[in-house]
Amino acid sequence: MFKVDLNSDLGESFGSYTIGMDHAIIPFVSSVNIACGWHAGDPLVMAKTVKSAIENGTAIGAHPGYPDLMGFGRRNLAVTPAEVKAYTLYQLGALQAFVKAANGSLQHLKPHGAMYNMAATDAKLAQAIAEAVYEAAPEVILLGLANSEMITAGKAVGLRVAQEVFADRAYQANGTLVPRSQPGAVIHDPDEAIARVVTMVKKGEVTAITGEKVEMKADSICVHGDNPEAVEFVKKIKETLEKEGVTITAFKNFV
Amino acid sequence: MFKVDLNSDLGESFGSYTIGMDHAIIPFVSSVNIACGWHAGDPLVMAKTVKSAIENGTAIGAHPGYPDLMGFGRRNLAVTPAEVKAYTLYQLGALQAFVKAANGSLQHLKPHGAMYNMAATDAKLAQAIAEAVYEAAPEVILLGLANSEMITAGKAVGLRVAQEVFADRAYQANGTLVPRSQPGAVIHDPDEAIARVVTMVKKGEVTAITGEKVEMKADSICVHGDNPEAVEFVKKIKETLEKEGVTITAFKNFV
Amino acid sequence: MFKVDLNSDLGESFGSYTIGMDHAIIPFVSSVNIACGWHAGDPLVMAKTVKSAIENGTAIGAHPGYPDLMGFGRRNLAVTPAEVKAYTLYQLGALQAFVKAANGSLQHLKPHGAMYNMAATDAKLAQAIAEAVYEAAPEVILLGLANSEMITAGKAVGLRVAQEVFADRAYQANGTLVPRSQPGAVIHDPDEAIARVVTMVKKGEVTAITGEKVEMKADSICVHGDNPEAVEFVKKIKETLEKEGVTITAFKNFV
Amino acid sequence: MFKVDLNSDLGESFGSYTIGMDHAIIPFVSSVNIACGWHAGDPLVMAKTVKSAIENGTAIGAHPGYPDLMGFGRRNLAVTPAEVKAYTLYQLGALQAFVKAANGSLQHLKPHGAMYNMAATDAKLAQAIAEAVYEAAPEVILLGLANSEMITAGKAVGLRVAQEVFADRAYQANGTLVPRSQPGAVIHDPDEAIARVVTMVKKGEVTAITGEKVEMKADSICVHGDNPEAVEFVKKIKETLEKEGVTITAFKNFV
Repeated sequence: MFKVDLNSDLGESFGSYTIGMDHAIIPFVSSVNIACGWHAGDPLVMAKTVKSAIENGTAIGAHPGYPDLMGFGRRNLAVTPAEVKAYTLYQLGALQAFVKAANGSLQHLKPHGAMYNMAATDAKLAQAIAEAVYEAAPEVILLGLANSEMITAGKAVGLRVAQEVFADRAYQANGTLVPRSQPGAVIHDPDEAIARVVTMVKKGEVTAITGEKVEMKADSICVHGDNPEAVEFVKKIKETLEKEGVTITAFKNFV
Repeated sequence: MFKVDLNSDLGESFGSYTIGMDHAIIPFVSSVNIACGWHAGDPLVMAKTVKSAIENGTAIGAHPGYPDLMGFGRRNLAVTPAEVKAYTLYQLGALQAFVKAANGSLQHLKPHGAMYNMAATDAKLAQAIAEAVYEAAPEVILLGLANSEMITAGKAVGLRVAQEVFADRAYQANGTLVPRSQPGAVIHDPDEAIARVVTMVKKGEVTAITGEKVEMKADSICVHGDNPEAVEFVKKIKETLEKEGVTITAFKNFV
Repeated sequence: MFKVDLNSDLGESFGSYTIGMDHAIIPFVSSVNIACGWHAGDPLVMAKTVKSAIENGTAIGAHPGYPDLMGFGRRNLAVTPAEVKAYTLYQLGALQAFVKAANGSLQHLKPHGAMYNMAATDAKLAQAIAEAVYEAAPEVILLGLANSEMITAGKAVGLRVAQEVFADRAYQANGTLVPRSQPGAVIHDPDEAIARVVTMVKKGEVTAITGEKVEMKADSICVHGDNPEAVEFVKKIKETLEKEGVTITAFKNFV
Repeated sequence: MFKVDLNSDLGESFGSYTIGMDHAIIPFVSSVNIACGWHAGDPLVMAKTVKSAIENGTAIGAHPGYPDLMGFGRRNLAVTPAEVKAYTLYQLGALQAFVKAANGSLQHLKPHGAMYNMAATDAKLAQAIAEAVYEAAPEVILLGLANSEMITAGKAVGLRVAQEVFADRAYQANGTLVPRSQPGAVIHDPDEAIARVVTMVKKGEVTAITGEKVEMKADSICVHGDNPEAVEFVKKIKETLEKEGVTITAFKNFV
């Protein structure tokens, strides 16, 4: 029996600013990553998004980011491990309060944007994030880039981990993503992207950009709800996976 | 046997900015209110202050405030009950993560500055804060101005409450503070202030500015550690109370 | 010859967040109020909006607000006159740099949201804002609510002033707005609203909610570009005014 | 006749937070760099610091930084040239308003912390900053690290430039600073530091860490007022330079 999770970033609106098609995407995913008020989101948005996730039966994750609302948390910032640990604790705790108040439970934590990317390759930052989760919420699963330092660090501190893959990204022979700066990094054909996901989920492998078969454990597929086309793609990926006999379910059910 | 708590605001430093004599004041108080990163404090400061409180055997409280670092949370802001509830949940949760990571426990929540003052007289804001605490952490005690809407709201939602009094402030016949804008609002003589506190703690009453004896339940006395004189005053208040047979202890032990 | 200005708030997007239909509304107005990065806007948005205003031949105004991005500057904040003066100087200067860099000129300053509303009735805040403009840019016109403290303060310090009216709001017999909390405060019929504007511009008067004719000098009419209906209304108001022989032109041309 | 400027960062306090010994250091320097509210400073502090600089006859510079109050602008942030240009315009303009309101004039702009360090070696960031200054205030001098990309970029866009040197830092044979991560980067002996400064000012050269004589044009020496020892060092450097026949004067007088 094949299982995989579909996750999407939600709750990124802020004050009078609305972003993302949260209501359109939530029926099609099994897990959501909720912004925690630093790179996006605010307390009212967090309360509303947690409630919506519970009503839709979607598993909830904290989605902490850098203190850079102006850059949406996407710009690298030279933080120390101690800083990133404290930032993770802070945002994790903040979201937990809303989850607790709504009688829900927290499935996972997934760092956002530049924090995610930096921790994927920086073992010390990855360890700092993993420690924060373990110390404040050891039952919470760490969701990170497949085959990255995040996964290594999560396992090392004693957390359950979930490996995230990207449908529309090419991989290198060592199992890491082809950087966006290189040609071929992004797969533009939706059908090809979906076919690759099916192979990752059912065969546990992906074809690297250099042609090799690479082992690839796909616990969760990252999808987006930024625009109508993105939502259509998610519908299609879900339908195709289900036709192929894959159950879409939150990863807490199988990792 | 008489008991009272001494509480002080701690952890108000931010980034490269240091404020307050936290190390000097912490040995003399039984409870600390730790800023949660909105009106003051940041995640590194929160981690350090929680650790210091645990090492000093001081009970820990969350000290949420308005999103107004520039005004130190002291300026009234026209927030709705829904906003203040979400702001309280957010900051309460954020601090809880640090407390959990340090294997500590959270005794109480006390709103800061303008949030405290507005909730003391606005029943809807008081209720919103009390609901936030009850929904996310029903075991946490609500610390509010004695005889204020905060106390009423806390009891109404089912929380334990602690009544806070001020050594250096005059009271009205109805048990509320004389506004600072009125003459006689602040008691400048330290000896008189301390004598009043002793009477509040041992007799449960205070003399109003208009001369009447007013019932005044003093669970906790607010003290400050902003400067050497303030610290000296706290030492003296502690010594005098102990000489008078009053035990200084965190209010979780008696409310 | 009748003349009036149409002004609209622009440049309220922030980082990854887009708000307002700036491109749709700008062809129909003669002046724009550009957010200065506190309640809305950011430096990249300011640069782009200034450029767009110059390309469209629209007069430019600074639109300073309170430091409350989360509340979009719409929540009353208990600021002192010294604070509001410094906040005005800061934001005025920031926008001026973009205007200077684009070889443009600044026509006016109009406070935003809660700052506008508070300064309309608080003479000290109004004076503080007027002083800030006069000291840093005495050639800049102060745009404020017609018949408000802002207009009085602007004249008193020696600034040129422009009186702003609202098409969709009812007025009291003393020439001030009927508070939104009262019935009849908002005029929902677009045709009635436009007819009232025509009367204000051509006859210099408006019928108060209590029936009296009230003198009303309308230098500029506030319009919105938040949604397609709002933009349609602006088109219609412009067309009607022009049919009635009123020239739509920036108020620097006639005040 | 030898001339040199002494510059120091001022106005870094924020809200209730005080940092730096501004009053103690200002009598000994000829130029001050005033924080512009992003990495430090706020509008009230800016107003007060500009006033103090004018009263003390000190030349005024804008000191823009990254939007990172929590990190005091010292952490590298992956900004684009367009972003850094807009950030510079914004902060430059903001400070100019206070200078204009106080009937003063702006001598220079010096980027702060990570913005300074990144622009010293990144030609595109340096160009973006130089363009911002040139477009909004072509009369303003760009103060940057001696022999850095900042100096090159300032000259290229047509600005006057001033070269900054550090008394307590070692230099490489190519005229750039020895990175702090390397041994010998910081010169701890005050007398040696002062002797090096005298040589830089009077002979236009410095001995590199590898022994070579390196040409070094010192227009301005960066000094600090963070603590009493720092202030003492500044007094001493000033006295020694004056004994050596060097006039301490704002660099607008000689570059």
